[in-house]
Amino acid sequence: MQKLKVGIIGAGRIGQVHAKSITYHIPQAEIIAVSDIYIEGAKKLAEELGIPNYYQDYHKILDDPEIQAVLICSSTDTHADIACEAAQAGKHIFCEKPVDLTVAKIKKVIDAVNKAGVKLQIGFNRRYDHNFAEIKRLANAGKIGRLQTIKITSRDPEPPAIAYVKVSGGIFLDMTVHDFDMARFIGGEVEEVYANATVMVDPEIGEAGDVDTALVALKFKSGAIGVIDNCRRAAYGYDQRLEVFGSNGQASAANDTPTNVSFIDETGNSSDKPLYFFLERYMQSFTDEMTQFIDCVVNDKPTRTTVYDGLEALRLGLAAKKSVEEHRPVKLSEIEG
Amino acid sequence: MQKLKVGIIGAGRIGQVHAKSITYHIPQAEIIAVSDIYIEGAKKLAEELGIPNYYQDYHKILDDPEIQAVLICSSTDTHADIACEAAQAGKHIFCEKPVDLTVAKIKKVIDAVNKAGVKLQIGFNRRYDHNFAEIKRLANAGKIGRLQTIKITSRDPEPPAIAYVKVSGGIFLDMTVHDFDMARFIGGEVEEVYANATVMVDPEIGEAGDVDTALVALKFKSGAIGVIDNCRRAAYGYDQRLEVFGSNGQASAANDTPTNVSFIDETGNSSDKPLYFFLERYMQSFTDEMTQFIDCVVNDKPTRTTVYDGLEALRLGLAAKKSVEEHRPVKLSEIEG
Amino acid sequence: MQKLKVGIIGAGRIGQVHAKSITYHIPQAEIIAVSDIYIEGAKKLAEELGIPNYYQDYHKILDDPEIQAVLICSSTDTHADIACEAAQAGKHIFCEKPVDLTVAKIKKVIDAVNKAGVKLQIGFNRRYDHNFAEIKRLANAGKIGRLQTIKITSRDPEPPAIAYVKVSGGIFLDMTVHDFDMARFIGGEVEEVYANATVMVDPEIGEAGDVDTALVALKFKSGAIGVIDNCRRAAYGYDQRLEVFGSNGQASAANDTPTNVSFIDETGNSSDKPLYFFLERYMQSFTDEMTQFIDCVVNDKPTRTTVYDGLEALRLGLAAKKSVEEHRPVKLSEIEG
Amino acid sequence: MQKLKVGIIGAGRIGQVHAKSITYHIPQAEIIAVSDIYIEGAKKLAEELGIPNYYQDYHKILDDPEIQAVLICSSTDTHADIACEAAQAGKHIFCEKPVDLTVAKIKKVIDAVNKAGVKLQIGFNRRYDHNFAEIKRLANAGKIGRLQTIKITSRDPEPPAIAYVKVSGGIFLDMTVHDFDMARFIGGEVEEVYANATVMVDPEIGEAGDVDTALVALKFKSGAIGVIDNCRRAAYGYDQRLEVFGSNGQASAANDTPTNVSFIDETGNSSDKPLYFFLERYMQSFTDEMTQFIDCVVNDKPTRTTVYDGLEALRLGLAAKKSVEEHRPVKLSEIEG
Repeated sequence: MQKLKVGIIGAGRIGQVHAKSITYHIPQAEIIAVSDIYIEGAKKLAEELGIPNYYQDYHKILDDPEIQAVLICSSTDTHADIACEAAQAGKHIFCEKPVDLTVAKIKKVIDAVNKAGVKLQIGFNRRYDHNFAEIKRLANAGKIGRLQTIKITSRDPEPPAIAYVKVSGGIFLDMTVHDFDMARFIGGEVEEVYANATVMVDPEIGEAGDVDTALVALKFKSGAIGVIDNCRRAAYGYDQRLEVFGSNGQASAANDTPTNVSFIDETGNSSDKPLYFFLERYMQSFTDEMTQFIDCVVNDKPTRTTVYDGLEALRLGLAAKKSVEEHRPVKLSEIEG
Repeated sequence: MQKLKVGIIGAGRIGQVHAKSITYHIPQAEIIAVSDIYIEGAKKLAEELGIPNYYQDYHKILDDPEIQAVLICSSTDTHADIACEAAQAGKHIFCEKPVDLTVAKIKKVIDAVNKAGVKLQIGFNRRYDHNFAEIKRLANAGKIGRLQTIKITSRDPEPPAIAYVKVSGGIFLDMTVHDFDMARFIGGEVEEVYANATVMVDPEIGEAGDVDTALVALKFKSGAIGVIDNCRRAAYGYDQRLEVFGSNGQASAANDTPTNVSFIDETGNSSDKPLYFFLERYMQSFTDEMTQFIDCVVNDKPTRTTVYDGLEALRLGLAAKKSVEEHRPVKLSEIEG
Repeated sequence: MQKLKVGIIGAGRIGQVHAKSITYHIPQAEIIAVSDIYIEGAKKLAEELGIPNYYQDYHKILDDPEIQAVLICSSTDTHADIACEAAQAGKHIFCEKPVDLTVAKIKKVIDAVNKAGVKLQIGFNRRYDHNFAEIKRLANAGKIGRLQTIKITSRDPEPPAIAYVKVSGGIFLDMTVHDFDMARFIGGEVEEVYANATVMVDPEIGEAGDVDTALVALKFKSGAIGVIDNCRRAAYGYDQRLEVFGSNGQASAANDTPTNVSFIDETGNSSDKPLYFFLERYMQSFTDEMTQFIDCVVNDKPTRTTVYDGLEALRLGLAAKKSVEEHRPVKLSEIEG
Repeated sequence: MQKLKVGIIGAGRIGQVHAKSITYHIPQAEIIAVSDIYIEGAKKLAEELGIPNYYQDYHKILDDPEIQAVLICSSTDTHADIACEAAQAGKHIFCEKPVDLTVAKIKKVIDAVNKAGVKLQIGFNRRYDHNFAEIKRLANAGKIGRLQTIKITSRDPEPPAIAYVKVSGGIFLDMTVHDFDMARFIGGEVEEVYANATVMVDPEIGEAGDVDTALVALKFKSGAIGVIDNCRRAAYGYDQRLEVFGSNGQASAANDTPTNVSFIDETGNSSDKPLYFFLERYMQSFTDEMTQFIDCVVNDKPTRTTVYDGLEALRLGLAAKKSVEEHRPVKLSEIEG
């Protein structure tokens, strides 16, 4: 079998995760080049994994006719431009989320991808998480019945640096975007958003024009309702849960923990807190989303998470932002799409 | 010790619960009369528990100078009037929730109670539930830290009869009222309410002008936020949970179940669903609230749940109703108080 | 309906429990007399519950022709003699466990009961515990399949006073006797016993000729095997669990706890330890066993836990004792029966 | 850094597991040869992982002066001989369990290893399992206090083929050997063993001279007691649990499951059964034990699981076998050591 030739653009934390998934777990593909504007990072990763080429300039990857697919793992502000170029170069694309913080640029990517006829998968990895995928399976199997209420808990162990907060687009575009995608994954299209938001974690976040604690109420087109609960800092760690209520029953995903040990003494029963953060909690999902992407490219299947999903999650984020600014429920149709 | 002499007005389901609590568990009090407009009910309860007097007309209870305290367990529409009369008669009052469906009548009760200098405790029994009381204890002890988010899950196993729905005042006054009180119990005063509501369980409920599935987003005066999730029918039973997130940690109350047995075979691991409904789930809390009421009267302490708590829970219900009608967040200050 | 007239012999802790069960929860019966060698105890209980007669001498109860059933709740050394006298007096008998510490005296009770044709129920209350009864139900329903292994965990929060240890007959007759009955309840007759025993909790228990930590391996007549794990002091409280493994699956009962609250902070996830001791954990079972006894008498049904069950549990205790003394497996057939 | 050169003898299931651990997760080592008497297996693994050499004859690995360490993953009957040869060839050794089914041959390995001064680590992978390692950590930290009782549950989802059963040495040498090592890992040296054993799963296992369901009671030298519960087939899957009771508290490890999802409907609450079998449950431990072995060799540390541990686990198995045959407790000192 001929292996799919892959290039990775961006050798940071998430680029390394995907590079290892392909090298260790996906025999149908091989990485033949990696680039990073910080070339030492590219070199280090290339050496560690035996990747034959490394570059500073990602164009060398796009220009390599051998390379069939690229993974865009660079900083968010570069995603859309590189994706357009990659599409023009005829490469299939795996693009980290968010595609961009503006609707306009995502639509350019949609156009470029459609025109080139290449595949694009967005890195909404949580759809591949063992727990959430199982709930989706239960829903698809009709076990839950007609969906009534969807509740998403998504709290980080600690806030990002203030410098990052300032360029992040705000909590709804940066953090909730994953939860909006989860809401759509389980409940379908959303019609309306209402957000309560506050600064409870760190006043500096407020001074930076952002919020750190939020509740987003959702109305789905199906008639179902939902809520997303976010916080930039949960003292007890990374809290990633989902509850789905329907006419037949309710499915819920608890957090994953390092061990299943409990210890009980005169002070009570104690057990582990959740796995520390997304690299620990979602490692399995990163491998599975990459396996899925390679499979879609190799076997010419449609990707399950497209740039359209990236667009809709962004629009929900923009609607939530508008809801806070205008202190009212905002219909998704009010957001350019 | 001289026992406190109690009269019970209303010998229905909840009247019977309180009568048994006093007879079996509260040695400081004794029931010396019971009334019910359906006198056979009063007679049956009197015989079962050895209560010396039973009447059709509750005025006989109010007129009995020996009786020091009354429990108002009649239908909701009679609560306020009887409470006013009881206050005028100098009786201490335990009144089932809701006091009334209008602010005006509750304010009359407040006036009457203040004027007469009698005690009044509202039957917000959930404050006495072992699980919720433990969370309150953790909050008071500073374990949770500064409160950030409060999430209340409150779903019934089955909707009431349509005839009842029509006179109930709607889900927010009838069902959510308990959850509004829980929100205030844990989080203090609420400033603003936004409600999403829909008919997912039974179209007849919609035809009766009510909703059966709702999410109420809350803003507390403290800056904390919250959400109440209601449904008139959960296929899996009575779902009564609470999660409280704060700067130091998170406390959550799971449902109580009939047994702690799990059975595992090749199809998976199975265990009990929640206790069936409020009589099963909250029996301990009914006994404890009554113990507390008797203690307040006998030892001249202020009651922990006053008619003011009844008023505020009603106002929150009215605000939620208005929020649905006007499709916007509603400040509590917009509601007459 | 004519109520069953009951007399209670022994107004100590367990006598009070049964007295309250009948007074508050069993309308088919009424207590008309209570006796205690410490007459103040009998008087106090009589006054609290409105029992019309109290005596120092239990013969006054046996001599009262109105009394149809007696509860023997006096000290263990008096159980057998009183049971024989009660049988001769034609009273139905509820007798606390153990009936006696010798086979000979229990056989006298069997003879007396058979001769008189009265009913006798032994206070093996754990058969009525909601968790263990549910496992029995699963076993009877065939869910577990052919039983393979039965594991009983039974650990006390603290050892009894040394003075009591000295007259208790030792851990196997005093504490394990309940577990032997549970083993028989679930697994049927036992054929052989092997016990490992040691002193880990308190050297004084060893000096008193007893052990405080033990493991008893069981062979059932059915071919199944089992183990009982005892300790006189578990630092974390009263540990009462059961696991039953069969060809189709496994059922297990976890401990009951005061609340279902969990609290999680940066140090981990914590929840309640088990309910403190037998009065807290088994209160429901005490009420249910008494309800069952009254029902058997009133409706002339055979009792579910007979003096024969008391005999067999004692013989298993004696076999375990012999196993430790002789350091070998002991067949139940080696014990006089 | 110079990578440690490793050769793998045996390219079966467990050989493949270790080969992947080294290739994907252990940068300090590289596999330069693999052998298998079924050479196609060696070839396939070599190609998959880019191992430069593959052989039918393992002597080619022992003869390669470049190779510093070998992993013995061949069939059990060859372990001891190959280990002796490897030691003589000056190779460090990772040897799968059991080393051998006879004391005599293990002692030869001990002699060979001591003489050659090479390291040997036995594949008792469960010591590296996240759950059991955490319990060990709690014990070492003094949280559990003085150990009183150790309970090991170890049940397989299905029995091996009868052909394998016949050459396996019996359940105690083949299956319980892991549990004996766990008992020693947690509780230290064992003094005496008593085993109850029966055929409950498959009569063919009995006809093959083996048993399929067993309970082994243990006395530790420390005075603690313990029990191991084995079954060749648990209908609900691979049951691998541990409970450790001490003077300060109790630690217990629950099973790992594929997801943390629970689903509740009118029939009850359901969740996953355990991960299917050892490859699923213990994959993390296989990687961690290999990481540890490579670290011991590279950094010249003593291995944590030596051939002596293999010997003692075997002797405990032989003692359990003798206990069943002679129907009595057997001291470990009765077994040649």
